[in-house]
Amino acid sequence: MAQNTSSSCSSLAVNCGKVEEVETHDYHGIDQDLLKEVVYDSLVWSSLHGLVVGDKSVQRSGKVPGVGLVHCPFSLLPTPFPESHWTQACELTPIFSELVDRVSLDGKFLQESLSRTKKADSFTSRLLDIHSKMLEINKKEEIRLGLHRSDYMLDEQTKLLLQIELNTISSSFPGLSSLVNELHRSLLNQYGEDLGLDPKRIPSNTAGSHFVEAFAKAWTEYNNPRAVVMFVVQAEERNMYDQHWLSAVLKERYPFYVYDTPMFIRKTLAEIDAEGELLPDGTLLVGGKAIAVVYFRAGYTPNDYPSESEWRARLLTEQSSAIKCPSISYHLAGTKKIQQELAKPNVLERFLDNKDDIAKLRKCFAGLWSLDDSDIIKNAIEKPELFVMKPQREGGGNNIYGVDVRETLLRLQKEGTDGNGAYILMQRIFPTVFPTFLIRDGICHKDYAISELGIYGAYLRNKDKVIMNDQCGFLMRTKISSSDEGGVAAGFGVLDSIYLT
Amino acid sequence: MAQNTSSSCSSLAVNCGKVEEVETHDYHGIDQDLLKEVVYDSLVWSSLHGLVVGDKSVQRSGKVPGVGLVHCPFSLLPTPFPESHWTQACELTPIFSELVDRVSLDGKFLQESLSRTKKADSFTSRLLDIHSKMLEINKKEEIRLGLHRSDYMLDEQTKLLLQIELNTISSSFPGLSSLVNELHRSLLNQYGEDLGLDPKRIPSNTAGSHFVEAFAKAWTEYNNPRAVVMFVVQAEERNMYDQHWLSAVLKERYPFYVYDTPMFIRKTLAEIDAEGELLPDGTLLVGGKAIAVVYFRAGYTPNDYPSESEWRARLLTEQSSAIKCPSISYHLAGTKKIQQELAKPNVLERFLDNKDDIAKLRKCFAGLWSLDDSDIIKNAIEKPELFVMKPQREGGGNNIYGVDVRETLLRLQKEGTDGNGAYILMQRIFPTVFPTFLIRDGICHKDYAISELGIYGAYLRNKDKVIMNDQCGFLMRTKISSSDEGGVAAGFGVLDSIYLT
Repeated sequence: MAQNTSSSCSSLAVNCGKVEEVETHDYHGIDQDLLKEVVYDSLVWSSLHGLVVGDKSVQRSGKVPGVGLVHCPFSLLPTPFPESHWTQACELTPIFSELVDRVSLDGKFLQESLSRTKKADSFTSRLLDIHSKMLEINKKEEIRLGLHRSDYMLDEQTKLLLQIELNTISSSFPGLSSLVNELHRSLLNQYGEDLGLDPKRIPSNTAGSHFVEAFAKAWTEYNNPRAVVMFVVQAEERNMYDQHWLSAVLKERYPFYVYDTPMFIRKTLAEIDAEGELLPDGTLLVGGKAIAVVYFRAGYTPNDYPSESEWRARLLTEQSSAIKCPSISYHLAGTKKIQQELAKPNVLERFLDNKDDIAKLRKCFAGLWSLDDSDIIKNAIEKPELFVMKPQREGGGNNIYGVDVRETLLRLQKEGTDGNGAYILMQRIFPTVFPTFLIRDGICHKDYAISELGIYGAYLRNKDKVIMNDQCGFLMRTKISSSDEGGVAAGFGVLDSIYLT
Repeated sequence: MAQNTSSSCSSLAVNCGKVEEVETHDYHGIDQDLLKEVVYDSLVWSSLHGLVVGDKSVQRSGKVPGVGLVHCPFSLLPTPFPESHWTQACELTPIFSELVDRVSLDGKFLQESLSRTKKADSFTSRLLDIHSKMLEINKKEEIRLGLHRSDYMLDEQTKLLLQIELNTISSSFPGLSSLVNELHRSLLNQYGEDLGLDPKRIPSNTAGSHFVEAFAKAWTEYNNPRAVVMFVVQAEERNMYDQHWLSAVLKERYPFYVYDTPMFIRKTLAEIDAEGELLPDGTLLVGGKAIAVVYFRAGYTPNDYPSESEWRARLLTEQSSAIKCPSISYHLAGTKKIQQELAKPNVLERFLDNKDDIAKLRKCFAGLWSLDDSDIIKNAIEKPELFVMKPQREGGGNNIYGVDVRETLLRLQKEGTDGNGAYILMQRIFPTVFPTFLIRDGICHKDYAISELGIYGAYLRNKDKVIMNDQCGFLMRTKISSSDEGGVAAGFGVLDSIYLT
């Protein structure tokens, strides 16, 4: 429901063959003086409330906190999003978390589905090696913690909410996305009347505090009062404040000291290799401290493993009784190849019983294909603009669009089939384009943009007991629509929140 | 009272001829691993909680909020300070505020006392011109708002709390000093036990919220519901976040909109000249908005008046019925020459009746002399190390110490007496030197330092009714003792808070 205000305008939109008049919030119609004021206030708010990142132009900004700070790039106003699709995305969250858990228990399915990827992608291959070792020693993870983020786009033409990917490791921005949400609410509290926007239509976002609650509950389940929560971090990280928000809330809400031990530590994989040891009972000690929960904010990309040291740390962690967020099985369950396997007919049915749940998941699946499917390959070479080619690697920004899809497919055909396992093909989604203001480096850019909505899910179980399975916040990311030929907001974008319509 | 803990050590101190054993907090004895942790956490805290300034190495950092941010330089731990002297300084605050008010009403005293300064200092001369004009038109300020800060040092040898200066305009750091106070409390809540420090011994600092309360109460007295609070700011200001904290609290605590008008605006003197007008009834309009309160965070230094435009703005403001913080009389009452005049025998008695109050003020006066006093001049040329020469200019960093005192006095003697009016001589204070850690630019410096304690006072009266006269927070500033020959923390230092002993 769009409000009829001075900042709304009518536009014509083609919707499934029908021409209908819809209302959209045309932010570009905002009075220039008012805009200037809102921009200034938003920058002040960000600086005072820690909505910051390390500035890439300052050398030490990824290593030393407090230096080379710059406001996190953000969208000035929340992007309109239909309430029905928002509700749909929220409802999907516990089902996806349950699915990941079930898939993680089927070691054979993971190994078989990823067997071709293993040949083509050395990173996935190393992860699968660790997974194999755990299968060999029959390692059981009785307490399982997942902090996932499922990302969606709203396809303009079909009005379908389609899943882009499911992140099961290092789901980023739980801290800063909560802050952007507060920023937007604060701006709308102050300027909402002038802008014709109601702050109540911004759904609340408590991702940060939910993550912390999940750590605390997992810590309780681990049941060693001397053990601590360990964040596994990169040695250099300009997005460190997103993580620091989590540790700040953890320290604030839960006792700083548990039997004279601070409850929280940060370590790199290299430090874990140097300081870590495994006790005979499975306890992981790092720097002499028992670890209850291992939260990975590193380890999701090959760049995080520059030497064997980091792989040893990952293996050591996996072998231990510490609660891994994620375990190697959860990590693998979030790969794009598994996403594509799950989209095949009758595969969801192997893991879930509830037919409604299965139907709900399937409704949000975009077209997903392996490169074994010769009909689809032919199709994609003819109409590459309708496809995205996704490599197995995490971290975004590696997707292939447009004529590059055609060229890559032709190259792979020439080279033989071994390389096929490194990619999947996905239906290209064309989301709605909105007028927006993006704030980067203190400068306001008036442009047209597309958005991607991520929903965080927190899942914790101990044996048969599900302790948490919640939708626990969201991440809206927005980017200039012309900046990426593919139209898919892979990579960073700017942080945003949503305005329910 | 110093606590007997592992981080305290005994040292020998010479006190008025007696040698006695005292306990001091030797922060330099802190365990290195613990120190590293505290430093890291302090930098994270600063970044998340807006304890930031503009980085001078980033060009736009004084103009655009949100870019080129760096943590505000601070002392890692609060500096020990005797509780008795703390109480003394707090008790002095309302007396000094009352004194400023009384002095401001005696236009003749201000003009006469500053008549020689007028000849030697063109800036004071321009201020006096505005003051004269107000005397001529018999301008009355019925509602008077003062947000002062009286700065003190504790003289090591005499154990006397001595006043350095009284700031009646642009008393800086009400926002950031409150934050450093919170930072120290947060660190001691977490690490206090390991450090042997009790967070309860840090007095609370609510300068920021008290300033805002003063604005709100003054606004109420002005009694024009459509009028707003105006911050007069420099066009470029790297310490802008100190001011933004005040406006953020103002917006949070008081309605954003008063009859559809935002309650708060920021303007430079040049903007006030361009957009300002005076209504026949004395109302000051800026950009069409009636102004209730003018809070000067600019206008205290000649640099803020690069052209006649800024002087016109200052005069326009003064002519209006808006509540000026400060009025021209309050501004002049805070000059160093007036400080020196008030220290003369029988001068305080002209303004105050209460003998106890007079005795309390006098007890904190350091030796202060004009350059007319030939005995003192002779003395200072012989023993320049016992004196500080202070020019009339505000802003710190202009003081003259050591052999430069001798040279300047000899030069002035040669040049004739006109230049004398630009300076006063002050007894040099030798404060206690403490082991400290100063954090600048993300780096921890272990050193010895001296501190200066400023106490904020908020004073508001309407005719005969005193509405506020409170001690309302404090600013501790600490600097490396060897960095300034004079031993007086003129200039910035780093922000600190105090640990009562």
